[in-house]
Amino acid sequence: MRVSIIAVGTELLFGQTVNTNAAYLSEQLNLMGFDVMYHFVVGDNPKRLKEKLIDAFQDTNIALLTGGLGPTQDDITKEVVAEYMGTDMYLNEDVRYDLVDFFNKRGKEMTENNLKQAYLPVGSTPFYNATGTAPGFALEKNGKIAICFPGPPVEMRWLFENGARQYLEDYVDKKMYYRVIRTIGIGESDLETLLLPVIDGQTDPTIATYAKEGECALRVASQRHSINEAKAAVLETLKEIDDIIGKYIYSYDDKDLNDVVVNLLKEKNLKLSAAESCTGGMFASSVTDIPGASEVFILSYVTYTANSKIKNLGVRASNIEKNGVVSPEVAIDMALCAREKSGSDISISITGYAGPEADTGYSAGEAYIGYVYGGIQGYLKVNTSRNLREWNRKYFVLMMLKTIYLLITDKME
Amino acid sequence: MRVSIIAVGTELLFGQTVNTNAAYLSEQLNLMGFDVMYHFVVGDNPKRLKEKLIDAFQDTNIALLTGGLGPTQDDITKEVVAEYMGTDMYLNEDVRYDLVDFFNKRGKEMTENNLKQAYLPVGSTPFYNATGTAPGFALEKNGKIAICFPGPPVEMRWLFENGARQYLEDYVDKKMYYRVIRTIGIGESDLETLLLPVIDGQTDPTIATYAKEGECALRVASQRHSINEAKAAVLETLKEIDDIIGKYIYSYDDKDLNDVVVNLLKEKNLKLSAAESCTGGMFASSVTDIPGASEVFILSYVTYTANSKIKNLGVRASNIEKNGVVSPEVAIDMALCAREKSGSDISISITGYAGPEADTGYSAGEAYIGYVYGGIQGYLKVNTSRNLREWNRKYFVLMMLKTIYLLITDKME
Repeated sequence: MRVSIIAVGTELLFGQTVNTNAAYLSEQLNLMGFDVMYHFVVGDNPKRLKEKLIDAFQDTNIALLTGGLGPTQDDITKEVVAEYMGTDMYLNEDVRYDLVDFFNKRGKEMTENNLKQAYLPVGSTPFYNATGTAPGFALEKNGKIAICFPGPPVEMRWLFENGARQYLEDYVDKKMYYRVIRTIGIGESDLETLLLPVIDGQTDPTIATYAKEGECALRVASQRHSINEAKAAVLETLKEIDDIIGKYIYSYDDKDLNDVVVNLLKEKNLKLSAAESCTGGMFASSVTDIPGASEVFILSYVTYTANSKIKNLGVRASNIEKNGVVSPEVAIDMALCAREKSGSDISISITGYAGPEADTGYSAGEAYIGYVYGGIQGYLKVNTSRNLREWNRKYFVLMMLKTIYLLITDKME
Repeated sequence: MRVSIIAVGTELLFGQTVNTNAAYLSEQLNLMGFDVMYHFVVGDNPKRLKEKLIDAFQDTNIALLTGGLGPTQDDITKEVVAEYMGTDMYLNEDVRYDLVDFFNKRGKEMTENNLKQAYLPVGSTPFYNATGTAPGFALEKNGKIAICFPGPPVEMRWLFENGARQYLEDYVDKKMYYRVIRTIGIGESDLETLLLPVIDGQTDPTIATYAKEGECALRVASQRHSINEAKAAVLETLKEIDDIIGKYIYSYDDKDLNDVVVNLLKEKNLKLSAAESCTGGMFASSVTDIPGASEVFILSYVTYTANSKIKNLGVRASNIEKNGVVSPEVAIDMALCAREKSGSDISISITGYAGPEADTGYSAGEAYIGYVYGGIQGYLKVNTSRNLREWNRKYFVLMMLKTIYLLITDKME
């Protein structure tokens, strides 16, 4: 069954909000076996929204809409959907009750405009919202299904999980199975060249490579009449791929590197500490993104000044004087200090330039990663050749994670 | 002049990549004075891409396309655009030279498929790519303009800034000026209710409210024949808005709170330190996102275990034993220790539960923020009532930033 996703909101067309809702819904719908054919984004404009509804239903049977269900004047989605489907609006007493209750509980007066959220199209299936004030709903007519969600991602996701998913289960026909392989240390064109014997002439499973920031991913997908059939086809192709590029693969099921690393540390019962300069806490933040990180992660010293590296972390002042604060020697010293202070098994550090500024003799994007693990200590030089602060910081974190990954899987060359 | 943005890539329809390119281009185009009318996302499928090109050019004169210019078989964008515009492809010798050079410099053999990137539509204006291997280009025919960019955001942005922007300058007609006001401490419906006298009946400037995670923003936009006229209209409306909701506003030009805080600290010559538990380095990372943060930020102790809070940060063990690690007393102690160890003027701390787990008597989403600034010390209790780890961590960081903002602007009540 084919699906379109329509996001409604002028803020998206102004570029002030990124359409993460479409990505989330796409992933969930694909996993359920739907074919997501298009994303549309349209402003808070009834005429253009109606045109895009017409476009979407020309080629797909289901349209999921996000945004424009709120209390304000520019929230127009459900009125336009109702009009397109040829139905009226009614005041849903349950939603009204919830709304009044929501404001009472917070000790606030409900402003009049909030009541707009209690109106729904006649004949729609409401999805009650425990995370906010606007309910979602599904509306089916003449074989066309429109499902509407509020725009804030937390509410949209909650309503998908607690309403829309179950509603949609009835409309799945072909079953999709896919796996995403994550690699590091190889570029997209090299990857495709190596895999050409597997890719060539393949129609199902399909194999697609795509570049992510600092790494490369590979999607293997099959759509068959049963999920077991699709799964078997994908697993067979995965085996062929693994034979060719196995050494670059760090995840066979789209796990991020921080997730893989935290779980490997858990498995091996290893404790981690860090000392960060140019990543400014982003490494620690990436590790602690993963629930249960507290089992393996002790601390990070985010020492952003030379003096705090000496005074708080314990790096020798003479080392910094002699080699400069951005140097292999200081990187290693930082890792050694972090291990000593924390009693961790493994320690990782970084010192470098995220940009836009760098000291004489260096460019933005240059950094040294220091590491200590058992009797092993060493450093890695990173140079992104890019003066892009955000990109550099993310890439540095990825390289720190990669260093840990290689160390604890005994793959460090 | 009306513009559509078309992103090409099955990975977007699978939800594995978020369409940040559309947001970036939309923001830049709006600032230039273009009207971005639609975003489309379509898979690596020639037929459907062609259909969306037809749709886009029905209502807009310019289409910006991202993705599908790479070396692999599923990269189809420029071939489809050329066919739609009725032109052929040719081998661009400059691009071929750059490609060979790119691989030579990296000491790598160029695989045959890379040469595909040197083919461009006849009559197109190439945009040479210093950040990657695929060039972008603009192709104009019969009043329709298609501009194509590679998909990786870094390359797309670079080519927009170093090629497309200048090309597009010639096509701006009406001038747009807009400002985005950022507020904290007030919800969207309250905001609209307060501003109703200004919003009602207003056609230009337009005023739109939208909820961001944990806060609320307001866009005031005007489109007139001259930029000065548009600017004057927006500034007048801003004054009216400021009179009504001034106390909730922390930025009049869409600056994030971390940016505002870092620049205020700079201005006031104040040094900052932190001690983080449940935010796990995300606070430090948010502060150091801002270039020049090193002028004001000394360090953060990311102490993720109770023992590291005692041993490394210096929190009294008796305090943790008596009050529990998540308590106002420990939060304040963490801030005091961070200040003492770093010699900062202001210190902020957090201890709490990001989720999914929380200790008995607490829920995920509960945390205490401690602060010390001159003779002032205190704490703030935060409770998101949500068991959403990612959301909670971001919200905690926002509340830490808000606390600093209120302290240093003497607005803390």
